[in-house]
Amino acid sequence: MAYKVKGTIWIEGPGGTFLGLGRVNLLQKIAETGSISEAARRMNMSYRQAWEHVDAMNRESKTPIVITNTGGQGGGGTIVTKEGLKALKQFEKLHKRFQSFTSRETTKVKL
Amino acid sequence: MAYKVKGTIWIEGPGGTFLGLGRVNLLQKIAETGSISEAARRMNMSYRQAWEHVDAMNRESKTPIVITNTGGQGGGGTIVTKEGLKALKQFEKLHKRFQSFTSRETTKVKL
Repeated sequence: MAYKVKGTIWIEGPGGTFLGLGRVNLLQKIAETGSISEAARRMNMSYRQAWEHVDAMNRESKTPIVITNTGGQGGGGTIVTKEGLKALKQFEKLHKRFQSFTSRETTKVKL
Repeated sequence: MAYKVKGTIWIEGPGGTFLGLGRVNLLQKIAETGSISEAARRMNMSYRQAWEHVDAMNRESKTPIVITNTGGQGGGGTIVTKEGLKALKQFEKLHKRFQSFTSRETTKVKL
């Protein structure tokens, strides 16, 4: 039998989930598109769901992860902050190390 | 902010999940009680659910994980096989290494 070790991993803040793979994908799409609604569309997610994820991340962080500038000369825009990009990078590294862990563990399963 | 790295881990066979924390608990209770229905009761699970987990594990293993001997002089009895106990032990070790991994990763989160 070919067994594989699999798993999921996330970062938890004091009040609940802060960052997992789904939110990382959402943040990447917000950074690409400058828009929560466009990012939501590309994730097949409702605007409300996306907004709730963003709001939860911002609440679990001392400085905001995503900010929306409304109005102004060039119109509004949503960006992933420096803190958000830092969180993204850390999660990506964590996720790579986790993938190494599961690959290594897969070779150890002897049944 | 106090962040923690959390996650779940399981072993997958060619046809689906083979063993995770829930099934490990179920196997431990079957080994303790010699009965799927008593193990199910202690897990707050229906007999049908427990039986389906057992059946799925047996299907994902080349030799059975749990066997039921019906009738005979001493009546029937359900046991976790040698193969099942081996799988249990390997999962427990894997799970400990995973807990070390998440603890180590928690110290690396700098946000």
